[in-house]
Amino acid sequence: MAKGLTPRSEDYAKWYNEVVQLAELADYAPVRGCMVIRPYGYALWENIRADLDRRFKETGHVNAYFPLFIPFSFLEKEAEHVEGFSPELAVVTHGGGKELEEPLAVRPTSETVIGHMYAKWIQSHRDLPLLINQWANVVRWEMRPRLFLRTTEFLWQEGHTAHATREEAEEEVIRMLNVYADFAEQVAAVPVIKGLKSESEKFAGAGASYSIEAMMGDGRALQSATSHDLGQNFARAFDITFQTADGGLELCWTTSWGMSTRFVGAVVMVHGDDQGLVLPPRLAPIQAVIVPIWRTDDEKAQVVEAARKVEAALAGVRVKLDDRDQFTPGYKYNEWELRGVPLRVEVGPRDVKQNQVVLARRDVPGREGKQAVPADGVADAVRAALDAIQDALLERARAFRQAHTQEVEDYEALRAAVEEGFALAWWCGSAECEERLKEDTTATIRCIPLDQPADKGACAVCGRGGQSQAVFARAY
Amino acid sequence: MAKGLTPRSEDYAKWYNEVVQLAELADYAPVRGCMVIRPYGYALWENIRADLDRRFKETGHVNAYFPLFIPFSFLEKEAEHVEGFSPELAVVTHGGGKELEEPLAVRPTSETVIGHMYAKWIQSHRDLPLLINQWANVVRWEMRPRLFLRTTEFLWQEGHTAHATREEAEEEVIRMLNVYADFAEQVAAVPVIKGLKSESEKFAGAGASYSIEAMMGDGRALQSATSHDLGQNFARAFDITFQTADGGLELCWTTSWGMSTRFVGAVVMVHGDDQGLVLPPRLAPIQAVIVPIWRTDDEKAQVVEAARKVEAALAGVRVKLDDRDQFTPGYKYNEWELRGVPLRVEVGPRDVKQNQVVLARRDVPGREGKQAVPADGVADAVRAALDAIQDALLERARAFRQAHTQEVEDYEALRAAVEEGFALAWWCGSAECEERLKEDTTATIRCIPLDQPADKGACAVCGRGGQSQAVFARAY
Repeated sequence: MAKGLTPRSEDYAKWYNEVVQLAELADYAPVRGCMVIRPYGYALWENIRADLDRRFKETGHVNAYFPLFIPFSFLEKEAEHVEGFSPELAVVTHGGGKELEEPLAVRPTSETVIGHMYAKWIQSHRDLPLLINQWANVVRWEMRPRLFLRTTEFLWQEGHTAHATREEAEEEVIRMLNVYADFAEQVAAVPVIKGLKSESEKFAGAGASYSIEAMMGDGRALQSATSHDLGQNFARAFDITFQTADGGLELCWTTSWGMSTRFVGAVVMVHGDDQGLVLPPRLAPIQAVIVPIWRTDDEKAQVVEAARKVEAALAGVRVKLDDRDQFTPGYKYNEWELRGVPLRVEVGPRDVKQNQVVLARRDVPGREGKQAVPADGVADAVRAALDAIQDALLERARAFRQAHTQEVEDYEALRAAVEEGFALAWWCGSAECEERLKEDTTATIRCIPLDQPADKGACAVCGRGGQSQAVFARAY
Repeated sequence: MAKGLTPRSEDYAKWYNEVVQLAELADYAPVRGCMVIRPYGYALWENIRADLDRRFKETGHVNAYFPLFIPFSFLEKEAEHVEGFSPELAVVTHGGGKELEEPLAVRPTSETVIGHMYAKWIQSHRDLPLLINQWANVVRWEMRPRLFLRTTEFLWQEGHTAHATREEAEEEVIRMLNVYADFAEQVAAVPVIKGLKSESEKFAGAGASYSIEAMMGDGRALQSATSHDLGQNFARAFDITFQTADGGLELCWTTSWGMSTRFVGAVVMVHGDDQGLVLPPRLAPIQAVIVPIWRTDDEKAQVVEAARKVEAALAGVRVKLDDRDQFTPGYKYNEWELRGVPLRVEVGPRDVKQNQVVLARRDVPGREGKQAVPADGVADAVRAALDAIQDALLERARAFRQAHTQEVEDYEALRAAVEEGFALAWWCGSAECEERLKEDTTATIRCIPLDQPADKGACAVCGRGGQSQAVFARAY
């Protein structure tokens, strides 16, 4: 166990908070509910951002930037939307030394102001589809803040698209849900369930909301990204119309989808252990740290020279050489383990003599995770080890999720299962059954998976005919 | 002249506003003073950002993210700072449905909140230098908004560093000034003058401010980036101290430096002409547009096939093939000229027969800018043309600046010179002389160039001994 780090089994919430701060991912800001994303945490977010941005562009989207301030009257144009977001708003009432005529909301999300602009920009069917994403900060007032997971201000991307037909919009919603799922699994090694949100959990103003749901290390769910089918709700509220090929005038079909810095919290909780962070190689700001080991000055000269050669050989790998004088190798091991660097490369005097280095995997503690490799082949060995770690993390997370997911048939079993992890159960579709479990256990329907079994069962809450199988869990 | 575009000579301000909107760089937002950066303008900003970010990282800086909201009391800790920024603040008074105990300023700049965090993070000389940058939005209430140039919200980066000695901080300030100048000239083809701001123009709270100043197409100056030596002012206000190697406790020396979306306006005004934007190839979202030319369907099949081959050959070039059916080649030429694409590649039926394409430079109108090149060598020819355009734009901007810069010795000449462009004149250093010219002409001291002549002259305003040669100009 890392120094000063509470074991997960003792107090998971405390462990999370400590690991985020000790690993210098983030810190509390002087304004309640806000956070500072420190350089190491921001580097992680930059890697998330770069990969997602590439995927968005590959699927035909372009970036733009819409304003931070939204006239309050805009939010009121979509009834569900204003009802959902009003309690969370930060409101600017003064600007340039004067009280404003109309207060401005700091954007909690941008459907309204983007809808306003789309109405202006879209004239003809030739302007469609309009496929825009923005990277931005948003503000939702938070009473119980937790670093990354719930903060008053957070960073995210929000995609906003407009289409000529319902079918195209529906395709877009599922396309982006798949982009998120693929990113989560292939890059962050976070296995997710793709599904539809229930009515009570959907986005305020959406026709249908989809999400990817991941299981954290304590068995709870974290909604990791959402993709909303907005139907014509916002098009109607903001008059987003287009002229069809045959001269008619129709309302557009719009979508929105987002992933936020919240996902950094998911990466921490899915992979972290009692030594600290464990970062998937494809996201890690530092993929490999080289630690030279010496006692005498002669030894130092030798091992640092050898370590520099290793560093030079690792072109294309995000590598750091830690040759600081003032710390022992043991101290450095702990520090880089706390920070979750996937692979450590040790270079000691005996290694230099034998023309080798020792690779130590972060995800496999102790002797079992160590491997001596020839110094000449270090680049290939490091790349292979990073690939193996990436795969192992995904496999481990999948196995954990499977071990903490139960298929249940009755209410007793459902109540018990959500204490341990995910419960897969049939649901009749009624808000009453959903609400009953929530009141009894705080667990909610996380999503109705897109993959559904062929045969139906009875609702685990009321025993009536089940409409679909849902994932029930307590959630962050 | 492009359709609907006011010539620069007729009304420069109107031309600017039209070209920004017609080329779809930006649009006015529904909140007064705010703008929407449209995808084409944002792509330009992304290219600016990517290049600067690489330069910051190469000079040892890392990115982080600090909160949008700043307690009002923080701003008050540095007396000059609060005085300078108070009139421009947007203030949040309500959050989560309640009135806040202390109002929050939406950050106009982040020295204060970053100073607060640095005081917490910096303990020892080993923690120094601390070299952090952030990419963020900031808000400064704007009464006379102009797209990109002056908007209530804008995007920027702000670097904030802390050092153990005055000398190191001073080196950092000049290092970053040079980074900006090199970027402006080598990437944006915008020639700049590096210099010190006068007391009346310096950043509120700085010991000394430096800037790079560029000349726009109407002879006015635009401050394109700033680099501030904050001395120990903010360290004192926020108690940013460190333990020295011998156990003493000292205040840090801090700096800050920034460049914003304002610079997009500079790129528009330095290079644009009566046909629209002219973008430097290293920043252009689209570096070359391929326009196939046909009359019959047979011709179309031929030229589009040839155009696709050209597109495939141009790997590594940001290229677009415009094979839209509904527009004539002439329409397309105008559109891409308006949007400032540096190079057009024309492929007509005769070109296909002769196994050639025609390159047309945006910066050289008419026949003179056209060149037929063999289709087989198109990649090299395009790259060479893009390099030539990049160089030519810088040269042209330099020549324009030289033609509109006068070295003057007396007040009469100074007054006349600032009507035309930059005046280089000796200045006694007094605020009175600076103020007199400002009242008479609205021109200000843009900067005191780092490069100073060996021999001194008399102040052009009062005739007393000149302390330094300054650049006087009307400014955006």
